[in-house]
Amino acid sequence: MGKTKNILFIMCDQLRYDYLSCAGHPRLETPNIDALAAKGVRFTRAYCQAPVCGGSRMSFYTGRYAFTHGAVWNGVPLSVDELTIGDYLRPLGHRVALVGKTHMVADRGGMERLKIDRNSIEGVLVAECGFEPYERDDGLWGTAEIAPENLAYNNWMREQGYDGPNPWHDFANSAEGPDGEILSGWHLRNSRYPARVKEEHSETAYMTGRAMQFIEECGDGPWTMHLSYIKPHWPYIAPAPYHDMFGGNDILPANRHPKELETDHPVYRTYHRREDCRAFSRDEVRETVIPAYMGLIKQIDDHLGRLFAFMEENGRMDDTMIVFTSDHGDYLGDHWLGEKELFHEESIRLPFIIYDPDPASDATRGTVDDRFIESIDLVPTFIEVAGGTVPEHVVEGKSLLPILHGEQPGDWRDYVICESEFASRIDLGALGMAAREARAIMIRTGKWKYIHHLKFRPELYDLEDDPNEFTDLGADPAYEEIRSRMRETLTENFLARNFRTTVGEEPLARRAHAVYHPPEKRRVYIGVW
Amino acid sequence: MGKTKNILFIMCDQLRYDYLSCAGHPRLETPNIDALAAKGVRFTRAYCQAPVCGGSRMSFYTGRYAFTHGAVWNGVPLSVDELTIGDYLRPLGHRVALVGKTHMVADRGGMERLKIDRNSIEGVLVAECGFEPYERDDGLWGTAEIAPENLAYNNWMREQGYDGPNPWHDFANSAEGPDGEILSGWHLRNSRYPARVKEEHSETAYMTGRAMQFIEECGDGPWTMHLSYIKPHWPYIAPAPYHDMFGGNDILPANRHPKELETDHPVYRTYHRREDCRAFSRDEVRETVIPAYMGLIKQIDDHLGRLFAFMEENGRMDDTMIVFTSDHGDYLGDHWLGEKELFHEESIRLPFIIYDPDPASDATRGTVDDRFIESIDLVPTFIEVAGGTVPEHVVEGKSLLPILHGEQPGDWRDYVICESEFASRIDLGALGMAAREARAIMIRTGKWKYIHHLKFRPELYDLEDDPNEFTDLGADPAYEEIRSRMRETLTENFLARNFRTTVGEEPLARRAHAVYHPPEKRRVYIGVW
Repeated sequence: MGKTKNILFIMCDQLRYDYLSCAGHPRLETPNIDALAAKGVRFTRAYCQAPVCGGSRMSFYTGRYAFTHGAVWNGVPLSVDELTIGDYLRPLGHRVALVGKTHMVADRGGMERLKIDRNSIEGVLVAECGFEPYERDDGLWGTAEIAPENLAYNNWMREQGYDGPNPWHDFANSAEGPDGEILSGWHLRNSRYPARVKEEHSETAYMTGRAMQFIEECGDGPWTMHLSYIKPHWPYIAPAPYHDMFGGNDILPANRHPKELETDHPVYRTYHRREDCRAFSRDEVRETVIPAYMGLIKQIDDHLGRLFAFMEENGRMDDTMIVFTSDHGDYLGDHWLGEKELFHEESIRLPFIIYDPDPASDATRGTVDDRFIESIDLVPTFIEVAGGTVPEHVVEGKSLLPILHGEQPGDWRDYVICESEFASRIDLGALGMAAREARAIMIRTGKWKYIHHLKFRPELYDLEDDPNEFTDLGADPAYEEIRSRMRETLTENFLARNFRTTVGEEPLARRAHAVYHPPEKRRVYIGVW
Repeated sequence: MGKTKNILFIMCDQLRYDYLSCAGHPRLETPNIDALAAKGVRFTRAYCQAPVCGGSRMSFYTGRYAFTHGAVWNGVPLSVDELTIGDYLRPLGHRVALVGKTHMVADRGGMERLKIDRNSIEGVLVAECGFEPYERDDGLWGTAEIAPENLAYNNWMREQGYDGPNPWHDFANSAEGPDGEILSGWHLRNSRYPARVKEEHSETAYMTGRAMQFIEECGDGPWTMHLSYIKPHWPYIAPAPYHDMFGGNDILPANRHPKELETDHPVYRTYHRREDCRAFSRDEVRETVIPAYMGLIKQIDDHLGRLFAFMEENGRMDDTMIVFTSDHGDYLGDHWLGEKELFHEESIRLPFIIYDPDPASDATRGTVDDRFIESIDLVPTFIEVAGGTVPEHVVEGKSLLPILHGEQPGDWRDYVICESEFASRIDLGALGMAAREARAIMIRTGKWKYIHHLKFRPELYDLEDDPNEFTDLGADPAYEEIRSRMRETLTENFLARNFRTTVGEEPLARRAHAVYHPPEKRRVYIGVW
């Protein structure tokens, strides 16, 4: 063991914080992830900055809040002027690559205006949010009619003998009916069947293999790899034997209360009408889908076991920081909701484990830490691991290295922020709203969760008295002082954002000093008699 | 008269709202500006978005608040991803050029990362905030030792017989002492003397001439020109005869009260120690400098008379919208302050006149309008004049065309916002502050002016009872409810900002519609049983 050299940044998609055995799940054993936690630090109160793939990931990659970088939702391009992990670590000597999903959309408008060639190195990087796209696959490839011809995974599948225009859909994410018909994994009812793919040809297996290839290629490093699994995100369908490892009795009970359905809040009233929320409110759906979801997690754990053994053999466990996390959670019917997008713990809280081989982190191995962590903390952590200096006027997160080293940073944050613009998932027409009005920001302290909606009344939950988040105090006059205090904190948070990104602190401080300690000869004289 | 074709956007630098005869100044006659107001609309409550050149101008040019675009202060580059007047109007067929000052600093970091060649068309435009630099001159060229060799105005001055490395300083902005010594206009004591330049060779005359050349070159148009005078900004020194047209008796009385000096507010306590604030607190300084300031304004008015007559002759008064404004004000000793940077009316309120030759605006000719106007309103106004559609997910201002046309927009704003990061002008060292902590945001309604400081107590002024802004109610417990209400509005304002610039409203609304009205065949199925 010595100084940490490489960074392996593993992300699952839509993995809830509580579907791991180390996080207390009673039926799902994840021994390989648990083993990582036992060698590192497991953070129990880690949160995403946006409860949806695109927005959350762009915060992970930029180290900035979602309403700061602006790519708040899936399909919203990350502006060409946003710096990412790759932009920070490449100049520090790292090869920075992606294996799997980012949900990045290129800022074509900006690229065209600035005449950035999509095929130049700059063009590729700015279109792939700073990653070398060693293997780019967002894993949501629709049905056969619109299958991408050139998807690397599809080509590889064909080499393995899976024919057709879109093996991703027809084999890896479909089952077979009794008459040989294809039962699409897009339909929840089919989650009970095994996918039509051998386990070793599934997406999770393939991506793990690609990660090993990358590590092998990199030899001595240093490198940073974002291994970004598409599962357990939908389509919820697992290959054998993972499809029937779990049953309806193995799932966590639904965290919901009938009174939640009586809410007057327009966002929830709209969501409750939505197809996915109605489906996941049914026990049959939960009991069909969640076992597949668990199987997909179990499969990832097994492949991580394979990956970690490979790294052990190659000496990479001694010089590679490993982060294991997810982009957001999954309601799975809790609160009568499907998907994510809103702010209950099931949606925004992340599994979050960091293993740092550096002896400086020995003091914290195997510990559990309940400080408030935000996804934006990874970028500054990675910059420090790579030996760089965090540009604090751009990056909004805080390096976790002091915590890993067992220091007790005195000024650690006492709240987390999560932001959502759920415009494309709410019934704008029925509510008579503009897309830009469908915005909310959450602030969660130890006791309170306050959600400020731009166009609706706020929500408020007392997480000590009501940890299940059943009782919305957002309209209760008795809590106006709490709500007001939360809004004050929001104002501070907004005002402290890093909007001034093109100049750092030092030049300003130097200029300020010169005003009060003027040099003899000045370029300009302001207000001198 | 017909449809408006061209746009002449005239800006003075540091011209207060109240130093024009049409705005009520008792001794300063500005007949040409007044005549423009008599043909157009004069807005009495127009405000800049940042009380300093760079930040204010970038809001004028982008149509976005200062804390949105991030170029909050002089020397802070405007990010490569910000769109400006030129980016909007050029695709609509306009030639969009600059004559004079912008205070733009190129985002070199962004340009290098994206490999944008400074000498390509894209490189020039992104470095000049979207303007074709027909004549770029920020007019603050220091002393001889660091004179720019290639400044066009200097070269032209040399052709007129003004020798030396920096005629801008040595002639146009200096006087001559009794022994032939150069008395620099950088020193306030020299404001009483005439500049060593013939009036027709001064900056104001030169820039007016360049503007006429541009108009001539453009023939039939359409064009947009930003004619951006450097004066009456310091160096406060006017050529004869303007240097002694006014005397100490002609200036407005100082708007200040002894109790303001007793404030406990750290920002003011620091400012009161600053050289420029101490200087302008002295009557001798005001009586020396303000007459020169007035002379410079008078000179601009005369040259605008010349320009308007030229346009009249050429038919341009019939097809050109003319805007007359300034980037911010000047304390000139009011409130014991010099410069600008803070939020009193003297600093943030703008002269603001729009003349629109279009017959659609006949209804409002010669009217005075007291609605709240923000500098960001010009970009959407210009886009509409040029026949374009305002991208409302990017631009934060509101088009003024409906007002010019005499309509009564029902939802006009009831407050204005102004933002400042005065890091490089406050004694960060003595206050133990980081640069990024020196931030404040002001919200001004009809009755209240509330200033929220990130690190200090807020300020509050009752503009009805205390129009002179002498009494700071920011710490008075009796006004906590008002302050709280103002903070609420700030939160709304922040949350409604246009941070999602890379996708507009329509695609989101379309996606939302599809969720609640799903088509028969979908690409992906979310939560469908």
